[in-house]
Amino acid sequence: MKQELEEQQDFVKEVTKMSDDFDRWYTEVVRKAEMADWSGVRGMMVVRPYGWAMWEAIMRAFDDMIKESGHENWAFPLLIPREFLMKEAEHIEGFAPEVAWVTKAGGRMEELEDPLAIRPTSETIIGAIIRRYIQSYRDLPKLTNQWNSVVRWEMRSRLFLRSREFWWQEGHTFHASAKEAIEEADLILRYYRSIAEDWLAVPVLAGKKSPAETFPGAVHTLTIEGLMRDGLALQMRTSHYFGQNFANAYDISFSNRENERELCHSTSWGMSTRLVGAVVMGHGDDSGLIVPPKVAPIQVAVVPIFRDDAGRSKVEAFIDGWAPQLKAAGIRFRVDWRDERPGDKYAHWELKGVPLRLNVGGRDADAGQVEMVDRLTREKVAVPVAGIAARLSAELEGFQKKLFERALKFQRDNTFELETLDEVIAHYREKGGFVWASWCGDTDEEARIKTESGGVTIRVIDEETKPSGKCLVCGEPAKFRVALAKAY
Amino acid sequence: MKQELEEQQDFVKEVTKMSDDFDRWYTEVVRKAEMADWSGVRGMMVVRPYGWAMWEAIMRAFDDMIKESGHENWAFPLLIPREFLMKEAEHIEGFAPEVAWVTKAGGRMEELEDPLAIRPTSETIIGAIIRRYIQSYRDLPKLTNQWNSVVRWEMRSRLFLRSREFWWQEGHTFHASAKEAIEEADLILRYYRSIAEDWLAVPVLAGKKSPAETFPGAVHTLTIEGLMRDGLALQMRTSHYFGQNFANAYDISFSNRENERELCHSTSWGMSTRLVGAVVMGHGDDSGLIVPPKVAPIQVAVVPIFRDDAGRSKVEAFIDGWAPQLKAAGIRFRVDWRDERPGDKYAHWELKGVPLRLNVGGRDADAGQVEMVDRLTREKVAVPVAGIAARLSAELEGFQKKLFERALKFQRDNTFELETLDEVIAHYREKGGFVWASWCGDTDEEARIKTESGGVTIRVIDEETKPSGKCLVCGEPAKFRVALAKAY
Repeated sequence: MKQELEEQQDFVKEVTKMSDDFDRWYTEVVRKAEMADWSGVRGMMVVRPYGWAMWEAIMRAFDDMIKESGHENWAFPLLIPREFLMKEAEHIEGFAPEVAWVTKAGGRMEELEDPLAIRPTSETIIGAIIRRYIQSYRDLPKLTNQWNSVVRWEMRSRLFLRSREFWWQEGHTFHASAKEAIEEADLILRYYRSIAEDWLAVPVLAGKKSPAETFPGAVHTLTIEGLMRDGLALQMRTSHYFGQNFANAYDISFSNRENERELCHSTSWGMSTRLVGAVVMGHGDDSGLIVPPKVAPIQVAVVPIFRDDAGRSKVEAFIDGWAPQLKAAGIRFRVDWRDERPGDKYAHWELKGVPLRLNVGGRDADAGQVEMVDRLTREKVAVPVAGIAARLSAELEGFQKKLFERALKFQRDNTFELETLDEVIAHYREKGGFVWASWCGDTDEEARIKTESGGVTIRVIDEETKPSGKCLVCGEPAKFRVALAKAY
Repeated sequence: MKQELEEQQDFVKEVTKMSDDFDRWYTEVVRKAEMADWSGVRGMMVVRPYGWAMWEAIMRAFDDMIKESGHENWAFPLLIPREFLMKEAEHIEGFAPEVAWVTKAGGRMEELEDPLAIRPTSETIIGAIIRRYIQSYRDLPKLTNQWNSVVRWEMRSRLFLRSREFWWQEGHTFHASAKEAIEEADLILRYYRSIAEDWLAVPVLAGKKSPAETFPGAVHTLTIEGLMRDGLALQMRTSHYFGQNFANAYDISFSNRENERELCHSTSWGMSTRLVGAVVMGHGDDSGLIVPPKVAPIQVAVVPIFRDDAGRSKVEAFIDGWAPQLKAAGIRFRVDWRDERPGDKYAHWELKGVPLRLNVGGRDADAGQVEMVDRLTREKVAVPVAGIAARLSAELEGFQKKLFERALKFQRDNTFELETLDEVIAHYREKGGFVWASWCGDTDEEARIKTESGGVTIRVIDEETKPSGKCLVCGEPAKFRVALAKAY
């Protein structure tokens, strides 16, 4: 019990080093930086304000993007009747093992006539509902999205990456032609890429999934894959083109211009709180988190330094002189007046990954300046308080770029080209990262890669580059250029 | 089937008159204005973009308010173990009849060891979790909030007002003293009042609930009550002060400044999609909705009028000349190019309650003006396009005020003072509205009011005004001045 209380304290100075034990480092950082915890309900997490605020920044950015291109938010039911769920065979086969079922209700826990599934994803209920709103080609496209949580009865769990409940958006769109639907799935993948790279500063490989990794019921699945600092890939988002599979299962049809009935073409796409985990694993270091300024709940931490009440008053008056300028400039900052030693506060804000820290003592006040410390480079520079808001805004912008460049360099340094399965197997005995190789497209051979390498999978098919040479497994002429990796 | 398809068409011109059948009018307006529908899952609704966008505007406004005063958003689990739920006796007694239970999971629908409740509200799980994050007085207050949906197995249902799933925020706060917690509940009620009056333009009575209407487990419940256009009251929001009841049940304690353990004082408060229903019932008329500009998804509808392609080109070029100014000014507008007759479009936008409509024909283009029609007064005036954005912004602001004043007049015209239960019974045989009366505070007599009047209840206790005269039931000296009404 004492152990638990200590671990839960808000003021934490140290974590396991990333280089000593990545998994332990990850869990400690997420918990001690007050992002999330296990909830006491098995496999379900509680997201704390510091983690949720990052998700809110991501939600806002993506919501703006999709609304600009005509998507609309809906709220569809949490519970799905079994009959709705069962209509698309491949889809239900994929999700049935993970469904949680509501079977009783009310004070006497009376049995329901038919059990209801908590949505593991909403294709099936949206299919059953949306058909009412589509009569003719004039009603298309229908570009729906919703923000919610879903439940999947996972057996393994990892904060933010895999839990029985997670938070996400799920987009579901319905179109008059295959071309439009394919373009929609492509557009969304570009948005996802922008969220990953421009907002989270995590560079990604983007492309198509192989058949084995395609979403149940989809014709094809697009993905973006980031590289975490332990060398494992993380599937950050997916966007699916369904062809007419769901429209056929749920009879979602429209009258075309010739007044004939046609089935719709549909897509779905989702982006989840997993992205918050990607921020942790994509940027952190031995001291803890490093948060990209664009999604940082706190961009600037101000640590006052003083010895006595008089010193405190002086520093406080000094900070009060320029802090309003930061607020006016929309900079998210926090002045840390807690009763702790400055050195401990430094470690605390480093652990939380706040991009910039300002140390402010009496002599700084006299000189009309603050000491600015960069979380990434750890450089310290004196910054005059005249024009401080503009300077900090520029520094934050620069920080965002530096963080992306650091991650891009890491990705490039850990991306390789190999030719045979033996080379791939040997590579992943020693190292992580992405390996580009050529593949003939055979699904059995895809399975062999995974089995013989101990879990390496095809993460992305690069559709823009022709494969050179032979398939890494069979040596026959290759059809696809693929990126391999071990992945979360 | 044909019937259903016709009803579901996007383009609707007519609804039942409010004055003919209020209930039917309500359901038709909600459905035909594309706000919400029943989902096909019993008792559960689907909220469509036009309804959800109003909820998004409400969420944004309230979220800004609570963040400004230091509240933080969390995400707590959807599912609650039975043991957590059962700890606060009064609370569970109040909610048990409405709980939906998850009892099975996975592909073979295996029985769970212990059933999990879908949250009907989250006091119990938050109580069980938050205690970990509270050690000393330095950790207080803890001001938590979350945006989510909850499930209550209701038997009656009405779109937005009562359904098995609804969307809301639930705030849960923990304090070091009763005084602070009571002030918190008061502060939130002021926010709720501001949402109702300043945003939704619905004037409310604010005050305390009587014991019979107090939330299960609360010491007291505060409420705001609006008057709908059929004369029935609607409880729009509630804010609860729990004293130490929940802290006691869940052992939520802290070390005070003297290093002694003390129980926290807590509050909870919630605001739901019910408010969207309040907009419909608080402002509508025979032609449909009237939406307050501040929460209107579309504030201005532009209807182009033309006879042929040349006419269309002319009007289009004219609109293209000034529409970007509207966008730049942040006015939410829609140009209706659909292939329908102008008169039908007028009716359509009236049904949807869009505050201002601009009719734009070739002669308007020649004169450099548009015809502006006010949804509330139905007045038409010519508006020059020079400076149109500033003019429309001012008109929208004026519309918001006029709408509130109209609702306030309606509320005042339908508020009465009576002295005896017989008078109250007679009153509600003929009329609706609020009746102010005096009450001795006896709970049995409160029950008698409800039984003998056919459902009239005490909506609000006015704590700021001393009661004059005698109790309406027993004739003894009164302790409370109360507002009575029939309510949703």
